[in-house]
Amino acid sequence: MSEASNPYAPSPYDEVSNVGNFQLIESTLREGEQFANAFFSTEKKIEIAKALDDFGVDYIELTSPVASEQSRMDCEAICKLGLKAKILTHIRCHMDDAKVAVETGVDGVDVVIGTSQFLRQYSHGKDMNYIAKSAVEVIEFVKSKGLEIRFSSEDSFRSDIVDLLNIYKTVDAIGVNRVGIADTVGCANPRQVYELVKTLKNVVSCDIECHFHDDTGCAIGNAYSALEAGARLIDVSVLGIGERNGITPLGGLMARMIVSAPDYVKSKYKLHKLRDLENLVAEAVQVNLPFNSPITGFCAFTHKAGIHAKAILANPSTYEILNPADFGMTRYIHFANRLTGWNAIKSRVEQLNLHLTDDQIKDVTAKIKKIGDVRQLGIDDVDTIIKDFHSELQ
Amino acid sequence: MSEASNPYAPSPYDEVSNVGNFQLIESTLREGEQFANAFFSTEKKIEIAKALDDFGVDYIELTSPVASEQSRMDCEAICKLGLKAKILTHIRCHMDDAKVAVETGVDGVDVVIGTSQFLRQYSHGKDMNYIAKSAVEVIEFVKSKGLEIRFSSEDSFRSDIVDLLNIYKTVDAIGVNRVGIADTVGCANPRQVYELVKTLKNVVSCDIECHFHDDTGCAIGNAYSALEAGARLIDVSVLGIGERNGITPLGGLMARMIVSAPDYVKSKYKLHKLRDLENLVAEAVQVNLPFNSPITGFCAFTHKAGIHAKAILANPSTYEILNPADFGMTRYIHFANRLTGWNAIKSRVEQLNLHLTDDQIKDVTAKIKKIGDVRQLGIDDVDTIIKDFHSELQ
Repeated sequence: MSEASNPYAPSPYDEVSNVGNFQLIESTLREGEQFANAFFSTEKKIEIAKALDDFGVDYIELTSPVASEQSRMDCEAICKLGLKAKILTHIRCHMDDAKVAVETGVDGVDVVIGTSQFLRQYSHGKDMNYIAKSAVEVIEFVKSKGLEIRFSSEDSFRSDIVDLLNIYKTVDAIGVNRVGIADTVGCANPRQVYELVKTLKNVVSCDIECHFHDDTGCAIGNAYSALEAGARLIDVSVLGIGERNGITPLGGLMARMIVSAPDYVKSKYKLHKLRDLENLVAEAVQVNLPFNSPITGFCAFTHKAGIHAKAILANPSTYEILNPADFGMTRYIHFANRLTGWNAIKSRVEQLNLHLTDDQIKDVTAKIKKIGDVRQLGIDDVDTIIKDFHSELQ
Repeated sequence: MSEASNPYAPSPYDEVSNVGNFQLIESTLREGEQFANAFFSTEKKIEIAKALDDFGVDYIELTSPVASEQSRMDCEAICKLGLKAKILTHIRCHMDDAKVAVETGVDGVDVVIGTSQFLRQYSHGKDMNYIAKSAVEVIEFVKSKGLEIRFSSEDSFRSDIVDLLNIYKTVDAIGVNRVGIADTVGCANPRQVYELVKTLKNVVSCDIECHFHDDTGCAIGNAYSALEAGARLIDVSVLGIGERNGITPLGGLMARMIVSAPDYVKSKYKLHKLRDLENLVAEAVQVNLPFNSPITGFCAFTHKAGIHAKAILANPSTYEILNPADFGMTRYIHFANRLTGWNAIKSRVEQLNLHLTDDQIKDVTAKIKKIGDVRQLGIDDVDTIIKDFHSELQ
């Protein structure tokens, strides 16, 4: 009996985490095109594809060539760019779509079909036998063309677990490259994700890819839990753009992963390009960067309360798990407000190249806090108060 | 031997989930005041406190009365409003602060002290014995005044687990009302949270409160995992505003919890007031609502891809886990784009009160997709195409 088939062999489970060995399927040009505001011209798609490739994503996923004539031509154009990233397109589990997809020049095809009772009843109306039969036909066809092939269920967390495992086992047996789990409605929670991936990991030998919508705010936490349970690939888009509120955002996932696997993340992805990439896409879809965007939000590295400022000045690791320099960003100590403390003001006094004793700094801090109680302060206001205080001492 | 002390008694663990029995500590007026842009006048604080109370939060947490003279007066003013929510203030673990806090009229005091090596070294410089001694003194003092008292560590996930459990056990034994876990730097992940809360749950008999910063995008997932492990209270703020990128957002947590505990959430919180509450705070701190804000983001209930629109029109549950009507919001099917499908166009034709056969609708859909390939379409454009097509048939 081989070790792999021995049910009493040590569980491979605790060894399966891919937190330090994950890959990104970047879907701004597929899922992102389903964002309400997205209309990408051919030139814009090419610009985004090149920027994603430069950033270092492993795969770039494109809208189905069947969606429209221009979608097909854009797919072909991006395949001809000779990017390092592998190019994928995303189609329905149907031979009509597959035949068009394999002619575009893509490196791989992502096939998806709804497996939940909801999607089977209201979307395509097919039963699981039909789904399995179509899947096998499409997979074998795409493989026969020498391309990578992924099979994903849709709405996986509301699908029958036995149906799901059956179809994944079937497609794994015929040599699919990846199977995908998709939280299409954004309802999954981290422990649920961990359990499903862990179960699936014991059923298939191929890689597992995960796709999480963010309707209930768990898309990053779910992605992390999936990697811990042995998933290998996560679908992301720039700023998370996609259907409704979109999916796991590239920037947020980078923030999560650099904390857990700093060497891997820093060696693989050009993190200092993240801001430009987000600005490029935000401009293309006419949205503002959310004020609280991970890493790139205007306040991501701003410290305000006096107690925080004091410790940050002594050692940034006290209140920062991310180093802004890794992303080409800078730290800012907000000292012009009533919550400020004398350590923050001391730092400002030094920046202004003035000389005050600690007691004097405490006095001027009290003055600043008092004025800050009455009105909102700007940096200029505080500088003026400090300079006036300093002059009066002379 | 009592059942509780029998180490071989059934683990209480699987019964401890508070997903359907959680409480909110709303900290827009404390953590939120540490947001870079926040400057709340007394009138604005009162307006926000009343709106939070009307929404139905369990607790409202206010900035320390020691932070500034106006902070103390504002705290007293809010205590006098006679709100249903209990009023808390948040202080350092120090008798000087506690003496001021108990005189403000608050219902309870939240005490916090840094327990990680980072904060002990660079913030307050105290050892664990000193921390325990101060904690006991402050807790007994606040209790003697008949007020609720919470003791929280700071930077809990980078603190020594033995130190942490020791101090929590000590404060639990003297009758603290709640102990708090704080992910001050936003580095925790959901499984780690689950494990720490589960461990702590077996050490203390009081309630557990959790505070999660969102630097790595897991603040909602972490909150959910904490409740699953038996935490009872979650700290939130409107739009998540706080130090750096802030904490678990109220709206996002509502989205998460309504999926898991719909009756509890709908009976307890006035969800249709969420949008007004977010607009009130966004305006006060001069930020735009993020485009992808859970529930209230402009695209949270917008469906675009043809395949999605088809199913949504047949049954909204197919691609929506949240019902927009629960929040006073509406669903929107985006049909004016090249990814549109004939089911979405059919729905629009019906809205326009025109009569076309399915084949005719498929023809006009092809026409719309073709034009949508060349340029971005507005609703007016599509309506014009449909009407022209309809006229030509007459």
